[in-house]
Amino acid sequence: MNKIEEYIKRIGEIDQNLMRKAQERLDNLTKPQGSLGRLEEFAGRLVTITENLMPELDKKVIFTFVGDHGVADEGVSAFPKEVTGQMVFNFLRGGAGINVLARHAGAEVVVVDIGVDHHFQNIPGLLDKKVVMGTKNIRKGPAMTRKEALRCIDIGIDLGREYAKKGYKLFGTGDMGIGNTTPSSAIATVLTGRPVSEVTGRGTGIDDEALKNKIMVINDAISLNKPNPSDPLDVLAKVGGAEIGGIAGLVIGAAAKRIPVVIDGFISTAGALIAYCLEPKTRDYMFAAHKSQEIGHKAMLDKMGLRPILDLDLRLGEGTGAALAILIIEGGLKIYRDMATFEKAGVSNKST
Amino acid sequence: MNKIEEYIKRIGEIDQNLMRKAQERLDNLTKPQGSLGRLEEFAGRLVTITENLMPELDKKVIFTFVGDHGVADEGVSAFPKEVTGQMVFNFLRGGAGINVLARHAGAEVVVVDIGVDHHFQNIPGLLDKKVVMGTKNIRKGPAMTRKEALRCIDIGIDLGREYAKKGYKLFGTGDMGIGNTTPSSAIATVLTGRPVSEVTGRGTGIDDEALKNKIMVINDAISLNKPNPSDPLDVLAKVGGAEIGGIAGLVIGAAAKRIPVVIDGFISTAGALIAYCLEPKTRDYMFAAHKSQEIGHKAMLDKMGLRPILDLDLRLGEGTGAALAILIIEGGLKIYRDMATFEKAGVSNKST
Repeated sequence: MNKIEEYIKRIGEIDQNLMRKAQERLDNLTKPQGSLGRLEEFAGRLVTITENLMPELDKKVIFTFVGDHGVADEGVSAFPKEVTGQMVFNFLRGGAGINVLARHAGAEVVVVDIGVDHHFQNIPGLLDKKVVMGTKNIRKGPAMTRKEALRCIDIGIDLGREYAKKGYKLFGTGDMGIGNTTPSSAIATVLTGRPVSEVTGRGTGIDDEALKNKIMVINDAISLNKPNPSDPLDVLAKVGGAEIGGIAGLVIGAAAKRIPVVIDGFISTAGALIAYCLEPKTRDYMFAAHKSQEIGHKAMLDKMGLRPILDLDLRLGEGTGAALAILIIEGGLKIYRDMATFEKAGVSNKST
Repeated sequence: MNKIEEYIKRIGEIDQNLMRKAQERLDNLTKPQGSLGRLEEFAGRLVTITENLMPELDKKVIFTFVGDHGVADEGVSAFPKEVTGQMVFNFLRGGAGINVLARHAGAEVVVVDIGVDHHFQNIPGLLDKKVVMGTKNIRKGPAMTRKEALRCIDIGIDLGREYAKKGYKLFGTGDMGIGNTTPSSAIATVLTGRPVSEVTGRGTGIDDEALKNKIMVINDAISLNKPNPSDPLDVLAKVGGAEIGGIAGLVIGAAAKRIPVVIDGFISTAGALIAYCLEPKTRDYMFAAHKSQEIGHKAMLDKMGLRPILDLDLRLGEGTGAALAILIIEGGLKIYRDMATFEKAGVSNKST
């Protein structure tokens, strides 16, 4: 049994009795029943995920997985490929969007080099988990070998296990990698069955002509590599990316350890969808942070039956949407933990 | 010239040059242009509202205006009327939803008795600005006199002025008052022109029969009192409420002092709509916190051209949605202030 199979086997069912107990508590708080809407849903889900009637979110971490993509050579991005490595330095200095928003949310950021096409010289703060020096160009062949794809998922699982052990109570996912909306759209097509044109967007901001080319590149890559929709690992290896595999693994590790995991945007959702297709129970441990501006995002969320928390026209990735969603989820938990009950506050309950 | 006219005269135009300058800064940060969507919009709006290229939100306050409603006698609410006064004690002890979420957002809560039908004995922490001992039953006559309505707005303006002087940089609105979705729906009908049935919802959670009755009560109140749609003060006096007037005044005071004001849900939006109909420029100073579950909310937001920040099925009021939205708005400001530029981070900009 490999590591993925081992951890998938550990993923437990959700106990609906706990959800009822959480709702009972929520219904005794000084507010009309259900009036805090999704905040109540988030609190209830935290209870069932953690199997703890008084969960805490004191230690939170967002993993930003970074990888390069051979397909960037096909002109699918508005930015040059070297930006991936440059952004790693920006992350480590704390100047990127994810650093700012993670600080705002009280979450740490862990930057994971899982496939950047650049030799970093043992930089403090960067987790060296490099599996590939960027993926291969999917228009010319598979992105990775099956063994490399497995290794990416294993890394995500291990990080989940390690940070659970360190006492972290909530994970967020994030990504960076010039060109990575292209493999994400390819995954979306293969695993949702929707046409490429319906799940392919402008990424960092390409024009109409470049978008037409991007759609052609993805169609070519799928025709050439023939990823098998009923084998998520095959899809990840043939048209995916290293950071997408890391995210899939993190989701599996989180679910196995009963840690809630907040899925960022388009690329993170492609990773989460790989995990979901390997084991649908992983869905019960996910929070969908937001609805991205990337048009293919909703199709993947719908496939998993996830309703996003925020809708702010974001399309940056890195984990930025996850950081913002964490603030809202935590609001729900604080309501659950800290509000007064009708009895304690001496407030009359509903007349009926 | 009365106070309202005086403060409305002070409300300035928005300088679009400042918006452009803010966008220039945003476009130089290490992210694809526009990729942080509405966070960028929020940052730009804070710059134009405050006329400060580097705004701060260090001191934030949410005003929870509390008032009773004679129309509660008509069975329009699921809760007994004494809950309004009981909740005041809950607010002051810090056990209500708004207390929990305001702490989460780093905002203070100011509880304003502007019309509660209860004699509070000078309780520490409660702002005594009582105008009425609850409004009159609008099914039997006007809620307030025009003079009382004016006084409610003046109180809101004065609070805005006072807290601007104390150095607060952001206001949020909130409300509490058993029965207050009824006057809010009446205001929505009169000022948007939509039928009562399209803007009247279940409030704290009434059943089908009570909802039918509530719609009848509102129709009766409008037929009897004949509020003049082109005279917002007349509408506020005849079918409104004291806390709704306070909120309208706070919005005017905020706009006159160039303080951004985050409008909570259904009741707060009725107050904001009174302010907007008195002076449409107030809109430029508002942030719509969220889309409430109350069905009439969207019609009022549409009338003002405001797009809500959150959509979390909330229907509690008190300022709870405003508190959550403040966290998101502040995220936008932190992006604007704290992210590294391409040049500083040594990251290559878009290839085009």
